[in-house]
Amino acid sequence: MPGEPTVRYFDNAATTPADPAVVEAMQPFFHDRYGNASSLHRLGREARRSVDRARGELATAVGFEPEEIVITSGATESDNLALAGLFFASTKRHLITCTTEHHAILHTCDWLESLGARVTRLGVDGEGRVDPAEVANALTDDTLVVSVMLGNNEIGTIQPIERISEACRDRGVPFHTDAVQALGKIPLPSASIDLLSLSAHKFHGPKGVGLLAVRRGLSLTPILHGGGHEGGRRSGTENVPGLVGMAAAASLVVAGLDGNSAQMAGFRQQLIDGIERLPGTRLNGSRELGLPHIVNFSFAGIEGESLVMRLDEQGIAASTGSACSSPNLEASHVLRAIGVPISMAHGSLRLSMGKQTTQEDVDTLLRVLPPVVEELRTMSPFKIGE
Amino acid sequence: MPGEPTVRYFDNAATTPADPAVVEAMQPFFHDRYGNASSLHRLGREARRSVDRARGELATAVGFEPEEIVITSGATESDNLALAGLFFASTKRHLITCTTEHHAILHTCDWLESLGARVTRLGVDGEGRVDPAEVANALTDDTLVVSVMLGNNEIGTIQPIERISEACRDRGVPFHTDAVQALGKIPLPSASIDLLSLSAHKFHGPKGVGLLAVRRGLSLTPILHGGGHEGGRRSGTENVPGLVGMAAAASLVVAGLDGNSAQMAGFRQQLIDGIERLPGTRLNGSRELGLPHIVNFSFAGIEGESLVMRLDEQGIAASTGSACSSPNLEASHVLRAIGVPISMAHGSLRLSMGKQTTQEDVDTLLRVLPPVVEELRTMSPFKIGE
Repeated sequence: MPGEPTVRYFDNAATTPADPAVVEAMQPFFHDRYGNASSLHRLGREARRSVDRARGELATAVGFEPEEIVITSGATESDNLALAGLFFASTKRHLITCTTEHHAILHTCDWLESLGARVTRLGVDGEGRVDPAEVANALTDDTLVVSVMLGNNEIGTIQPIERISEACRDRGVPFHTDAVQALGKIPLPSASIDLLSLSAHKFHGPKGVGLLAVRRGLSLTPILHGGGHEGGRRSGTENVPGLVGMAAAASLVVAGLDGNSAQMAGFRQQLIDGIERLPGTRLNGSRELGLPHIVNFSFAGIEGESLVMRLDEQGIAASTGSACSSPNLEASHVLRAIGVPISMAHGSLRLSMGKQTTQEDVDTLLRVLPPVVEELRTMSPFKIGE
Repeated sequence: MPGEPTVRYFDNAATTPADPAVVEAMQPFFHDRYGNASSLHRLGREARRSVDRARGELATAVGFEPEEIVITSGATESDNLALAGLFFASTKRHLITCTTEHHAILHTCDWLESLGARVTRLGVDGEGRVDPAEVANALTDDTLVVSVMLGNNEIGTIQPIERISEACRDRGVPFHTDAVQALGKIPLPSASIDLLSLSAHKFHGPKGVGLLAVRRGLSLTPILHGGGHEGGRRSGTENVPGLVGMAAAASLVVAGLDGNSAQMAGFRQQLIDGIERLPGTRLNGSRELGLPHIVNFSFAGIEGESLVMRLDEQGIAASTGSACSSPNLEASHVLRAIGVPISMAHGSLRLSMGKQTTQEDVDTLLRVLPPVVEELRTMSPFKIGE
């Protein structure tokens, strides 16, 4: 908008701007091609064809079959459907996950526990990785599912999901992964995945739509009951524009994966090099085994919220961690899980990039951040090293 | 689109075209004002303000308080959240509903039954109305909720929900209504309603977003667990464009209620007058106590699907009943519940209007329908009266 300052947006892990091509692809479906995909007449059949085409594109993008794609309202629903859907469809009562998962997994596990589930929450190492051997050891004949995310949303750590999945296959246990941060950032190891959650708005698609890919043969009880849409796995009138937008967004980020990913990885390295040299900083997560678009730092003697607010005043949008729990000022459960001391955990900054991030964005951040950190430390009652 | 024939759209109960003003209101939120409403920076705070404003507009439109509005992905989710949310939050195990509800209610009841609920499914009279005295008689100390829709989606019958709700209040039982077909068509008797489900795409808003209004003090267990959005009642990143679009759509239809409703009621009467005079027809539902935008007829000796397809060839979009179960060729459970003989139930036609419906649409329908009915009867192996 005219007169508004440029925002340097480093919060792509929270949400991304929809790609202009995505917005354009959705447009006709609001007012002109508005049919209900279940209607028999022409407008309905057109909608059904658009839904089918979008489902096919999504299937290709994620390495599943079209009939294995269940459209949802976003990854929170997908995660809930994966765990609760298996739980209600089975007599097995044991779930395995890890302590650094998104709350959509952890809180669903808490709920299922209240309904009789037994949940093993595996710890992670200092970089945030689960040990596949620990997964293998935790598996029992009663294990319903193992859920370990592909790449962490706060610190970017990539999990060894191929090896985790191998352990699951050996025992015939389905493996679920929350791949929300991974699509378009790293290749999906689809062959290792039985259930996969995505949210369109994390990869330049619209908010309010996502998917759960479910391998053929896995039986889920729906969590949304009704008209029997999505092959009886998720009821509700198809969100045609959302679906079309998500498919366009997925195709674009998968097609652009190599270039976008290399560019983001280059920026990430610049951010690490530029920020690590500041005194009293700590890189949270894995230097080598991280998603290309996420870095997370802790700054001694600083409150993360103050840092985000001061950066915001300078036109830089960043986050202390997951946007999903920002209003909640508790220290990040992810940072605690990797052993960040509570004082440092409160001084965390997540910088997350998108395919639209530019060198100028990175340069601006690296110019603005150091004096802001210094200024906040001057104001802080805590001193580094105290 | 140029060259395409005008569609006379009589399937507004399945879905409606988004109002151009709604599409415009949503636009900035896809690519420009794309912040996550949980982010602390300016883009996030802007998104939060837009969400809050939209929630306020929705609250006003439906006669609830802003903090009583839970945004969902649509009415199917709202219906599921109402019933399952109360079920998991309570030790009470008895639900009361009626046989003509939407499948989002009936199939959720089936599922809860499999988890230990006891469900009373009350019958309806020949016009599709529940007897409030029967509700009162069915209430027990174990009753968790009564769910009766405001206006039926297939036949348009308006339920006596004030009297049903009164019976519930006398026993301290919360009353839920699926008001999907009612908003913008009849005034909502909000004071009688404890929980209310809506879907934006039924009132010229976007697909993929809806709401459940929940009176303060009623406790629900979420069915989507995660970041604790919507006051801890429904997790998932806020669908900002969807919410803004739904609020704009709700405000428009509520502001236009009197005029739109009178116009649709006039068209409805013309349809009844014009169609009833055809031989072998039956008006399904209530002549006087029907929603102004829905009429449902049965035609002896005709398959509803054939009728819809022939009308479609003539540029008229209509339905045999609920779009939600169109691919399913079983006779409508609603028509069976009001005692339509199975042969007639298979020959049903639902005509549903919207605020955009014109006199020309109605005139065209009344011109095209009679010869189509006659032609299909000529082809049919069944004869009227046989």
